[in-house]
Amino acid sequence: MRIGVLTAGGDCPGLNAVIRSVVHRAVAAHGDQVIGFEDGYKGLLDGYYRPLDLTGVSGILSRGGTILGSARLEKGRLEDAVANAPALAKKLGIDVLIPIGGEGTLTAARMLSDAGMPVVGVPKTIDNDINATDRTFGFDTAVGVATEAMDRLKTTAESHQRVMVVEVMGRHAGWIALESGMAGGAHGICLPERPFDPADLVKMVEERFARGKKFAVICVAEGAHPIDGSMDYGTGEIDQFGHERFKGIGTALAHELEHRLGKEAKPVILGHVQRGGTPTAYDRVLATRFGWHAVEAAHRGEFGKFTALRGTDIDMVPLADAVSELKTVPEYRMAEAESVF
Amino acid sequence: MRIGVLTAGGDCPGLNAVIRSVVHRAVAAHGDQVIGFEDGYKGLLDGYYRPLDLTGVSGILSRGGTILGSARLEKGRLEDAVANAPALAKKLGIDVLIPIGGEGTLTAARMLSDAGMPVVGVPKTIDNDINATDRTFGFDTAVGVATEAMDRLKTTAESHQRVMVVEVMGRHAGWIALESGMAGGAHGICLPERPFDPADLVKMVEERFARGKKFAVICVAEGAHPIDGSMDYGTGEIDQFGHERFKGIGTALAHELEHRLGKEAKPVILGHVQRGGTPTAYDRVLATRFGWHAVEAAHRGEFGKFTALRGTDIDMVPLADAVSELKTVPEYRMAEAESVF
Amino acid sequence: MRIGVLTAGGDCPGLNAVIRSVVHRAVAAHGDQVIGFEDGYKGLLDGYYRPLDLTGVSGILSRGGTILGSARLEKGRLEDAVANAPALAKKLGIDVLIPIGGEGTLTAARMLSDAGMPVVGVPKTIDNDINATDRTFGFDTAVGVATEAMDRLKTTAESHQRVMVVEVMGRHAGWIALESGMAGGAHGICLPERPFDPADLVKMVEERFARGKKFAVICVAEGAHPIDGSMDYGTGEIDQFGHERFKGIGTALAHELEHRLGKEAKPVILGHVQRGGTPTAYDRVLATRFGWHAVEAAHRGEFGKFTALRGTDIDMVPLADAVSELKTVPEYRMAEAESVF
Amino acid sequence: MRIGVLTAGGDCPGLNAVIRSVVHRAVAAHGDQVIGFEDGYKGLLDGYYRPLDLTGVSGILSRGGTILGSARLEKGRLEDAVANAPALAKKLGIDVLIPIGGEGTLTAARMLSDAGMPVVGVPKTIDNDINATDRTFGFDTAVGVATEAMDRLKTTAESHQRVMVVEVMGRHAGWIALESGMAGGAHGICLPERPFDPADLVKMVEERFARGKKFAVICVAEGAHPIDGSMDYGTGEIDQFGHERFKGIGTALAHELEHRLGKEAKPVILGHVQRGGTPTAYDRVLATRFGWHAVEAAHRGEFGKFTALRGTDIDMVPLADAVSELKTVPEYRMAEAESVF
Repeated sequence: MRIGVLTAGGDCPGLNAVIRSVVHRAVAAHGDQVIGFEDGYKGLLDGYYRPLDLTGVSGILSRGGTILGSARLEKGRLEDAVANAPALAKKLGIDVLIPIGGEGTLTAARMLSDAGMPVVGVPKTIDNDINATDRTFGFDTAVGVATEAMDRLKTTAESHQRVMVVEVMGRHAGWIALESGMAGGAHGICLPERPFDPADLVKMVEERFARGKKFAVICVAEGAHPIDGSMDYGTGEIDQFGHERFKGIGTALAHELEHRLGKEAKPVILGHVQRGGTPTAYDRVLATRFGWHAVEAAHRGEFGKFTALRGTDIDMVPLADAVSELKTVPEYRMAEAESVF
Repeated sequence: MRIGVLTAGGDCPGLNAVIRSVVHRAVAAHGDQVIGFEDGYKGLLDGYYRPLDLTGVSGILSRGGTILGSARLEKGRLEDAVANAPALAKKLGIDVLIPIGGEGTLTAARMLSDAGMPVVGVPKTIDNDINATDRTFGFDTAVGVATEAMDRLKTTAESHQRVMVVEVMGRHAGWIALESGMAGGAHGICLPERPFDPADLVKMVEERFARGKKFAVICVAEGAHPIDGSMDYGTGEIDQFGHERFKGIGTALAHELEHRLGKEAKPVILGHVQRGGTPTAYDRVLATRFGWHAVEAAHRGEFGKFTALRGTDIDMVPLADAVSELKTVPEYRMAEAESVF
Repeated sequence: MRIGVLTAGGDCPGLNAVIRSVVHRAVAAHGDQVIGFEDGYKGLLDGYYRPLDLTGVSGILSRGGTILGSARLEKGRLEDAVANAPALAKKLGIDVLIPIGGEGTLTAARMLSDAGMPVVGVPKTIDNDINATDRTFGFDTAVGVATEAMDRLKTTAESHQRVMVVEVMGRHAGWIALESGMAGGAHGICLPERPFDPADLVKMVEERFARGKKFAVICVAEGAHPIDGSMDYGTGEIDQFGHERFKGIGTALAHELEHRLGKEAKPVILGHVQRGGTPTAYDRVLATRFGWHAVEAAHRGEFGKFTALRGTDIDMVPLADAVSELKTVPEYRMAEAESVF
Repeated sequence: MRIGVLTAGGDCPGLNAVIRSVVHRAVAAHGDQVIGFEDGYKGLLDGYYRPLDLTGVSGILSRGGTILGSARLEKGRLEDAVANAPALAKKLGIDVLIPIGGEGTLTAARMLSDAGMPVVGVPKTIDNDINATDRTFGFDTAVGVATEAMDRLKTTAESHQRVMVVEVMGRHAGWIALESGMAGGAHGICLPERPFDPADLVKMVEERFARGKKFAVICVAEGAHPIDGSMDYGTGEIDQFGHERFKGIGTALAHELEHRLGKEAKPVILGHVQRGGTPTAYDRVLATRFGWHAVEAAHRGEFGKFTALRGTDIDMVPLADAVSELKTVPEYRMAEAESVF
């Protein structure tokens, strides 16, 4: 069998572990050939690829990023590709394509699959917001980085009687904020799923100071937003959903709290450190299992599906399920977090 | 409600996170009283306990070990306790007992429960071998420590063309060896579940050297054992299961491989570093959720059960299910690991 | 002997290690009494303090921040204190004061000392910019945090062919940028000591891309500034030194580079994570030694001095030497760094 | 100029950073050619080498081990090499040899230098026992690994009221034990430099338990030994210095303490994890500076010397000074450590 692999979308710790696993399983167990397309779908369309063998994936298990690169593709080009999917596969001589990516990548994968290209997807998102899989790799690493930052910030907050506002990734789903906030012992968590009221945070901080705990750490997802009209530090602009836009919610919230509390409140924007670097053991194992099962599915001819963690097993799930809707944080998970503030 | 908490058995990163979560949920949300028994069941029987409030659990989320201590109990004493369980609960004035522990602890919990004491259990084992829960806290931390050690050992093995044999925890179940071996990129994994043949490892190492990869890392669970009669470095004694005893399988295997291969093979015994120290974010979140759900179960009067992770949810499962049989590594998980050697 | 300790200025990993060491050496070896003033000089003036014994400093060696707190003092109040220094020492019953702090703290210490209070200082600055000591504790931790961030950012930069601009601490001295830039393998380093020309960075990035290394990481100290008039993204305001002000040099530089290069350039502002959390082993050892030597100097009556690392030894140096001028990065250190870009 | 580089002796985090720095400085700043000999002096004698350019050292700054390999050489072969040193250099076409290694390597370097080969050495030892340099790279990483292990072990020791004996590297000098013991907050430290009396450790543990601190961590260098005749768990054999031999001092000491105290005492042998893996920022900076200065010395024709850290500067020191005597832990450093037990 000849297998094509590509990584698309934002990078994520564990991508290399999937690539390595695909190559090991395909080459060593099945005697397959594997080729890797450069820079995501771009390499697929332009025919830029390189053969991947055991030597080519040696030492990448613990490395962040992706050895194949990842780049955005203009929309029109993908549609052309979809129109010519079977011809494209034939031209490249691949029996199956294994695209590793997020919602956009899997949507494209589904289109290619519907158009006749044999595809087995592997889901990837640091945000953990893909439906139909319990977890995605990269998420655990991001949560770990954010938690370690909060561990560090707590000691400095405590020494200076400060409020710290830590902005973590999560534009549409608050999983990183939820879990790193719980793990880091944050005293407030703001998620995109539920508009927050700055007044609640002010009250929480004041109560803490009143009982002698003279610091607080608040964990806010980059996509969180306040109840409309509740904060002064917005841009005044209104976004497509009718909410006020903020120029960095972490910074805006820190200003708002400092203003209201009359106490120092400092923002820390974690940014890209959350998505780079060595994956955690958890992410390496999950990514390795995903790669293994993708190859097995390919050999069983189980196309049009993607690998998904369900409990402790890896199942194959229709690509349509990945993109039907975003997996957001349900209310009961938020309730669990709130009780340990 | 008045809730008694205790931690029993070997320590495990995340114990303090459970205690903290129980106290937060019980005190802040329900207005309960919480008392913590010292040194496991010993404190319960001897009536050594202390009240636990928000201040008492401040700052312990990220701390390893258990602030309540943990100690073994003579068998007879527990049986007495079981015989007098309801009276004991009454004397201590507790409405529910939340014991946090492994198989032994949960077996005792079940006996107390059957004898009439209201009990809600929280499972704990670094080995991840408790049935009926997808994962236990502490396991992720142990796997992380072992993986980091393998990351380090690989570079030194490679520089010196050496074989490294890393012995990790796991007396009866090989989960830590399986997952840290996969995550650390080990070239061989030996589990208690399946006797290994040293000849296979010799072959693997020789093949690696033949294709220019002049080093190897082998991950072996402390409870792994070779096929009977296959290794020279045993003690000659026969254990209760009819197998030869080895004085440290990691050391014995390294000697055996060095002898057979004529190449340096060094053992590294990770030991107790795997069970101490700061829990990973994953373990803190799981432990916190377990504590939360234990308190809620207590308030619903759902006794005789323990908290279990099922997919992404925490369910309540009968204590009997925890101890019916050990959760060991199934063949298909081992097959996944083998393909990336 | 009765010893007073205080921590002043910004917090710094290792403060608690100094406090613990002072208490251990003073109490266990000399039978001294130790008291700790709360919130820096404020506690000294207001007489807020608590006795510190072995139990009180148990477990703090590895904890960031300071158990004594730290706060700013209005200028006038300190002058009053200086005027009444001997009386104050007498009132508090202390035979020696050990203030742990940065340039400001040691200047105040010197004034108190000159006014007749027996003082032994311990230098503290995350920026490593105190003269007369080879290193200060906290610096190694800050460099470690920044280096780990750059390790992570490199993989994500490489996967996306991006430029990353990492802003680290260092308002007046660029030591953190220099050493974390070298350790993190940055391709450009900007220090406060030497105005940089954005054109040089543009050239470096273009040369890298030309030879196939399609990413770059630039490490910039928060106090670095461009050659006057060389950057578009400034605020237009002129500061007290006649230079244009920038609203966050990291963000401004990323914008400038993105604009000039026509490639993605992202800022990451590390901020307070650099100064919180567990100190490195290096910082714990240095802090512990400083504490030990401060107590010994006090017992020898060697007042008006502070502890300093000189090679491998701890010497006692006149307080005046600490504050005579800032220790900035010399040209030859910058030259060493430049050759590995 | 044509520069030959080799790494010899045990591996050490930072070796790759030196190689990278040599190549960057030599190639980019001076237009030199650099070749790397494989497996230490063996590659030099057998003529196994490869050219090293910027691409060849890309990405190795943070990697442990050595890309050049390291192997032992039979003694006779080196003597032959020394006899023909100038001819050998001529045959290989190298203008200077930069050997990176420990005492043995630098002794050989000195012999080659005396015999007429232009040599500039770079000192390397995880043990920090080379005279004439304040520190060697690799040491900080080893101390960091050992300290983190002790941080972890403390929590498990405390939970179970146990004594932990941690054996760290250091056959002839106790620097790793000294600094990791101080940083990890050990309650006892045993060094090769001073025979210890198990009775002192017993007394220390009993006093701790008496005042309610019911655990202890003891850090012992692998080369530490007890006062003759003071311990039961030796092998009975007498070594070349007239002392009894112990089969692993950590394990023997744990047995001895368990026997004398009647309390659980567990050994943890850290072993090779101390010398593998990613170097700390400190070690990367020091290694990078050493490489830079070695190239500069070569260009100045300053042969027969090695790079040494003196305070904050890198000096060139005669090779003879490196090997005149071992740098051991002086009494006053031990005294500093003892006061914080």
